[in-house]
Amino acid sequence: MAVTIKDVAKMAGVSISTVSRVINNSKPVSSDIRDQVLKVIKETGYVPNPVARSLVTKRSNIIGVIVPDISSLFVGDLLSGIEEIGRMYEYDIFLCNTYGESERELKYINLLKSKAVAGIIFVSEKLEKPQIDLIKESQIPSVYISKNAKDFDVYSIGIDHKQASYDMTNYFINKGKKKIAFLRASVEDNIEDSERYKGYKRALEDSGIDLDKSLVLQGDSTNESGYRIVEMLIEKGNIPEAIFASSDELAVGALNALLDNRINVPKDVSIAGYDDTRIASMIRPSLTVIKQPIYDMGAVAARIIVKLIDNQDVEEKYIILPHTLIERQSS
Amino acid sequence: MAVTIKDVAKMAGVSISTVSRVINNSKPVSSDIRDQVLKVIKETGYVPNPVARSLVTKRSNIIGVIVPDISSLFVGDLLSGIEEIGRMYEYDIFLCNTYGESERELKYINLLKSKAVAGIIFVSEKLEKPQIDLIKESQIPSVYISKNAKDFDVYSIGIDHKQASYDMTNYFINKGKKKIAFLRASVEDNIEDSERYKGYKRALEDSGIDLDKSLVLQGDSTNESGYRIVEMLIEKGNIPEAIFASSDELAVGALNALLDNRINVPKDVSIAGYDDTRIASMIRPSLTVIKQPIYDMGAVAARIIVKLIDNQDVEEKYIILPHTLIERQSS
Repeated sequence: MAVTIKDVAKMAGVSISTVSRVINNSKPVSSDIRDQVLKVIKETGYVPNPVARSLVTKRSNIIGVIVPDISSLFVGDLLSGIEEIGRMYEYDIFLCNTYGESERELKYINLLKSKAVAGIIFVSEKLEKPQIDLIKESQIPSVYISKNAKDFDVYSIGIDHKQASYDMTNYFINKGKKKIAFLRASVEDNIEDSERYKGYKRALEDSGIDLDKSLVLQGDSTNESGYRIVEMLIEKGNIPEAIFASSDELAVGALNALLDNRINVPKDVSIAGYDDTRIASMIRPSLTVIKQPIYDMGAVAARIIVKLIDNQDVEEKYIILPHTLIERQSS
Repeated sequence: MAVTIKDVAKMAGVSISTVSRVINNSKPVSSDIRDQVLKVIKETGYVPNPVARSLVTKRSNIIGVIVPDISSLFVGDLLSGIEEIGRMYEYDIFLCNTYGESERELKYINLLKSKAVAGIIFVSEKLEKPQIDLIKESQIPSVYISKNAKDFDVYSIGIDHKQASYDMTNYFINKGKKKIAFLRASVEDNIEDSERYKGYKRALEDSGIDLDKSLVLQGDSTNESGYRIVEMLIEKGNIPEAIFASSDELAVGALNALLDNRINVPKDVSIAGYDDTRIASMIRPSLTVIKQPIYDMGAVAARIIVKLIDNQDVEEKYIILPHTLIERQSS
């Protein structure tokens, strides 16, 4: 049975609060009594509870998690993974929402630093150097989840977006589709630099299909933007055979625009999303998707941060998790 | 123009870091210099920036927000409101996710207290006395969002659930429906104590419709539970004319069970949800709902907490915001 603070107090012949003072360095204790208590602690192998322990080491048992949008389904799933592993190792989590704004990212990094968190998991649409530098300066262990994390010398988790996008485009091509639209969710960088776009382009090339720029469309992460883009295509009479949206929410918007215009999915137009957030299986027709193992990404991020906090070895810096193509009703 | 720390340093004839030491009490400063700096601060009316100020007053500019489930759409919308108003008043937010577990609620209250947050917004499926007592003891200003908040002497925000539920049931009755199922999302308390159930029951009574207990069904907050319940009704051949689900996700599950069994919505069965989270307008047929002004609830909670932190008067303790019935394609 684990030794309790009560046992230590009894064996050292002092009160519980004296033991607590010694552990927490909170109030003066005579050096004789301190030595006596420390001796008993050493002999019994007593381990203070996490909160007390964190006070001793001046390190909190809090992991700060910085995310761009708390209300996105992607972030929700990611947090489930982080939280579950965090709990297992008795860490609590402070979440910070940045709206993807650099200024707020920097502010929250400073705030977490001032609150002496044990580790930081930083989730961002696109990583930038000042944020990484600030976290590095703080010397707080950190893990990153971001599409471009692999461009930096940091611990990070992701999937092979280029391959995933290639796989989905190829899936449509194998179904005999040639007119495949690509809807892009991110507005963070140049489309030519986007891994997902590269995968789409490459798959077309490999099958000898000409890239039709009128079918490469820029949205944002909302379903409304997917709706608008596809309505615009319908108005122009430029209706594709398949639509590959680079986020589930964008795909849902695209789907609704088709349904509201009485265009049958998947008979007339096939649709695929990207992520496999909860919405993908909640809608009808349910959404064919590239599944990112989002929960696992969060869980692995949490596991790594715990290892880093405990000064354990982490073999790889950039961990690529496997993606899968899930076929549902929309294609 | 506002006086800066630079001006104060210049006028007091000391370095900026000395002024900072005085403000933040961070390192020893001779009492002469301290007095001189404080005199200049007083004369110029210099106001330190929020972070510095919080160090002076030992009060942070952080609002702690404790929520039961970060990945629920309801919580997502609520947080948008809290964050937007929080930003306006230059507060940062630490989010804590409890999975609705009492133990974690208490843990996070203690954690926020130890981090000296300026205020706590506490969101819970069902409020319990120990949590409220712990927050009260901490003397940190607090606001509550919970169905049963009005049972306690606390600042809280909500809607009139009984009336909202009455309105929706009555809407179905006025459309000629008699066989109206009630799907309950919450498992927190006895159904007889539930305001939403009371409203449903009362509307039936007022129209002389007998309550059919086989159509009062207990789910949880997930769409899967809505799916299972309605599949079970279909298997038993006990298909209602209308389904009133007490959360949107539950309604989506109910809808999918009908669609997957080729039962037309709304021709054969009408459906309504509760909350008006984003999913309600993202699915097809889009969902008729009781709209809780979720964003506004968050915004008002944040406004009140800021007032309480600043010792301003808050007239009402229990603020009821208006609900609305939004008719969409599902009914």
